[in-house]
Amino acid sequence: MSTDPADPAAGTVMDGLPLTDHHCHGVVGTALDRDGFEALATESNWPGPAGTSMFDSQLGFAIRRWCAPLLDLEPHAAAEDYLARRLELGPDAVNRRLLGAAGLGTLLVDTGYRAGELTSPAQTAALAGGIGREIVRLEHVAEQVAAETTPSSFGADFAQALGLAARDAAGFKSVAAYRCGLDFDPSPPPARELERAAARWLGRPGSAGAVPRLADPVLLRHLLWTALELGKPIQFHTGYGDAELDLHRCNPLLLTGWLRATRAAGVPMMLLHCYPYHREAGYLAQVFPHVYVDVGLAVNHTGSRSPAVIAELLELTPFHKALFSTDAIGLPELHYLGAALFRRGFGQAAERWVDGGDWSVQDARRVASLIGCRNAARVYGLES
Amino acid sequence: MSTDPADPAAGTVMDGLPLTDHHCHGVVGTALDRDGFEALATESNWPGPAGTSMFDSQLGFAIRRWCAPLLDLEPHAAAEDYLARRLELGPDAVNRRLLGAAGLGTLLVDTGYRAGELTSPAQTAALAGGIGREIVRLEHVAEQVAAETTPSSFGADFAQALGLAARDAAGFKSVAAYRCGLDFDPSPPPARELERAAARWLGRPGSAGAVPRLADPVLLRHLLWTALELGKPIQFHTGYGDAELDLHRCNPLLLTGWLRATRAAGVPMMLLHCYPYHREAGYLAQVFPHVYVDVGLAVNHTGSRSPAVIAELLELTPFHKALFSTDAIGLPELHYLGAALFRRGFGQAAERWVDGGDWSVQDARRVASLIGCRNAARVYGLES
Amino acid sequence: MSTDPADPAAGTVMDGLPLTDHHCHGVVGTALDRDGFEALATESNWPGPAGTSMFDSQLGFAIRRWCAPLLDLEPHAAAEDYLARRLELGPDAVNRRLLGAAGLGTLLVDTGYRAGELTSPAQTAALAGGIGREIVRLEHVAEQVAAETTPSSFGADFAQALGLAARDAAGFKSVAAYRCGLDFDPSPPPARELERAAARWLGRPGSAGAVPRLADPVLLRHLLWTALELGKPIQFHTGYGDAELDLHRCNPLLLTGWLRATRAAGVPMMLLHCYPYHREAGYLAQVFPHVYVDVGLAVNHTGSRSPAVIAELLELTPFHKALFSTDAIGLPELHYLGAALFRRGFGQAAERWVDGGDWSVQDARRVASLIGCRNAARVYGLES
Repeated sequence: MSTDPADPAAGTVMDGLPLTDHHCHGVVGTALDRDGFEALATESNWPGPAGTSMFDSQLGFAIRRWCAPLLDLEPHAAAEDYLARRLELGPDAVNRRLLGAAGLGTLLVDTGYRAGELTSPAQTAALAGGIGREIVRLEHVAEQVAAETTPSSFGADFAQALGLAARDAAGFKSVAAYRCGLDFDPSPPPARELERAAARWLGRPGSAGAVPRLADPVLLRHLLWTALELGKPIQFHTGYGDAELDLHRCNPLLLTGWLRATRAAGVPMMLLHCYPYHREAGYLAQVFPHVYVDVGLAVNHTGSRSPAVIAELLELTPFHKALFSTDAIGLPELHYLGAALFRRGFGQAAERWVDGGDWSVQDARRVASLIGCRNAARVYGLES
Repeated sequence: MSTDPADPAAGTVMDGLPLTDHHCHGVVGTALDRDGFEALATESNWPGPAGTSMFDSQLGFAIRRWCAPLLDLEPHAAAEDYLARRLELGPDAVNRRLLGAAGLGTLLVDTGYRAGELTSPAQTAALAGGIGREIVRLEHVAEQVAAETTPSSFGADFAQALGLAARDAAGFKSVAAYRCGLDFDPSPPPARELERAAARWLGRPGSAGAVPRLADPVLLRHLLWTALELGKPIQFHTGYGDAELDLHRCNPLLLTGWLRATRAAGVPMMLLHCYPYHREAGYLAQVFPHVYVDVGLAVNHTGSRSPAVIAELLELTPFHKALFSTDAIGLPELHYLGAALFRRGFGQAAERWVDGGDWSVQDARRVASLIGCRNAARVYGLES
Repeated sequence: MSTDPADPAAGTVMDGLPLTDHHCHGVVGTALDRDGFEALATESNWPGPAGTSMFDSQLGFAIRRWCAPLLDLEPHAAAEDYLARRLELGPDAVNRRLLGAAGLGTLLVDTGYRAGELTSPAQTAALAGGIGREIVRLEHVAEQVAAETTPSSFGADFAQALGLAARDAAGFKSVAAYRCGLDFDPSPPPARELERAAARWLGRPGSAGAVPRLADPVLLRHLLWTALELGKPIQFHTGYGDAELDLHRCNPLLLTGWLRATRAAGVPMMLLHCYPYHREAGYLAQVFPHVYVDVGLAVNHTGSRSPAVIAELLELTPFHKALFSTDAIGLPELHYLGAALFRRGFGQAAERWVDGGDWSVQDARRVASLIGCRNAARVYGLES
């Protein structure tokens, strides 16, 4: 047994609050060897240089520190011991222990990425002991439609497919940031331009019979305008991610034109991750009534530094506009740490503000509950 | 009476130092209902989503915490109670109490925005118990000239009007950031280009007989080059503001070409606000001899986080190049908090540096006085 | 004697660790008057406004605080006393005391800038009591080749000269950031385009018989592709520097295309300085296996704030990807402070993470040694 198994958030104002993770993914249900585990513990698409390990990072240290005790190891257990214990317990037990300890009440699960390798929303939620809802990825739906449509019917076929996919979904997700950058023309593309773009896309052969990757800005914009009609919140990848994106083209400020164009419609725009542009995102959340922000992903990857990142997000962001998410994918460590470190980071920030006299304890508790779950409940129409 | 009415800056190295607010606006002289108050407590141009309040922000919490005791309420008073007490006291008493508590010795007041709704420099200064001077907004003068000029005489008419307006002014202000972004061509526009641009502008009908808004980069550049001739400091809006601007086009680094073009002239260029580009602004202040910076506006809106923002500004900025401002407008709460939180933020940072052994107490006091008023006195030629 | 001569890093986890400074320059061997000293203590190319001093900055305060005791003065000695004592001791003694106190085991010295005015790698290393190795500046070699080449033979002549220059060098340095910005086309320029660009460059007369400054993006790209062939690490100036660069065009993210194009080659790309884009640089270091980062230069210039900057660098950067450098040039104060403040900054950050339970002390020591020297040894193939 560990000598100090404590949750990092123990004793803070968010301790014990069931969180709504408004953006995450499923976990891998099979056993992971070292390479497989390390690949999921970084945003890199390649292994590190010879002789190095992804465990030598804030996330790696956080896993060894905070997750090891949940697998009956000492805090700071060696990476090898941690991975061996993981194999010994087996994926189901590991997933159950870590997801179960995350304290998630509701999980909104993005099903549009590596869906075949990951647990479904219902499975993920069951492991966590919470309720699961689906987030529908626009590009994924479009790529599924691609196989059975024509340039002239793409618009209608996509609208129908999206309507169907959205019936039980909590919201949508756009990865335009990855595909063309956020500096796209925000206006709805005219029908003729749409058809021409669809023809280009559908006429291009995918590799090995696969659907060609959707990366045309005209089509990506069209997906967004179609989703807007359906009225559900639209999540945007913004800020950092893997090496496929150009980070400087994922600055959420590049969405300013889109946010202006959609303000009157009132559909919530959820800016995910945002790091290192989370202060910029806070500005957008303050000035646009329909904009919401989080620092999911960054909390996990900045580990011991995550309290500073969370505090920065809360500079300009109104407290009814910040949400919690983990962006966890593959490893249940990411769900657990994403939640535990967020609780701690918000808790420490709030505590400092209370101690400094700026906030009352009552306000700190109320803001904890807004950010932890009540804002998500309001925006997505969830039972809270 | 409050149980803890203390000024947030009590006991710090800037406590009690009369400050020169080198950029602020007047206050509203009439009673404000909840909507009117909330609209002035955010940079948003629209109300928040149903069921939310602008009081749920760092600024809102700071108002309830630090201003409430000045109106005889408990710290952290409820928003409703705060607004009710404000109405009970009446605008004059509220303005007098809050502005009077700000400890401002000199106020440089921008008169080019909502002038009709706000107190004049003299009135504002009287409420604060300080001395008022005017900052002349270039675009405002140009828009006044527009009614009685022609394309070919615009250059001369503007120069004359600006000369007149500047006679007693402490300096100028440019809102090119709002009108065209800071990535404008920094060279002086040739006479012919100027005339063509003036013709386009003057030929465009304003709404309801109003002067058409000046947004042409050619004209905006011309205003700056005209102001430069007069030798007084030129303030630039940079960084965040309301939803009319594109924040990524308000990065002060986009002024680099302008700063190079004007360095030899030696006219001080005052970069206002800067957030979240205040580190970038600090670089400009270090490398260009005529560049000065502040984090007005951001201090108020980041509230409990403002000490961190102030400390970041002071990374690269030489201590003879940083100034204090509030950018307060409409609400005297913004003048009071802008000053009190700046005193506290600088004081805490300096205290930490003294405690860590990096700074001497004597140096901390001297820098406090440079940033608090002496730099402004030197740059604007004020009595100090 | 000083009442408190302690090294700022005393007692921290990096205290006493011999550091490898993977990017610095030599020192001035002659006596410096006030103007000469101040010019080297800022990134500005011009003196400050009348009545101001570069000593009124974080760096100036750090010099007076931490370097004064090494010259037998009290901490926080007045600038005049400090400069007088410097003259009294003479440049050799000053260089020896300060460089000797820096605790540098190995110094990689950029010889391509002001080489005639500064000590050589061997001299600099001797003053420091360490081992010196050379970093070859690509643009410097090209400018030397310019005098004796033709447009059609430039490619071959440069390759030969670089091969020769690199024989004993530890690596290369590119200042493309200064010359054209980092947003250059990352592909290798075709031979014909190269020849045309060389003709333009060589046909342009330099001032007073001097070699014309190399600023053509085609040529600058070609230098990089030539260096890549030689397989040694390539250092890039990124982030802030003097007023000749456009800081927003020195964002390391603008290298993303170049990093993608060179990933498979595996040659280490060393992003220097990075401030204020060090979080962005950390992202690149995480996702690209061949990218390394430091915050040299910024540590000196942010002084009392440097612990915060170092902590931010270590948010996304894997610990096997961060390096130490001073970027010191001219003043041995910069070598000493660069090392002492880095030790303190890393030490304080690590201590906080250990105290907060996130890191073990053993891990903190191991990371200190990775960042302090072992990463450099691995990447540059140094004896460690």
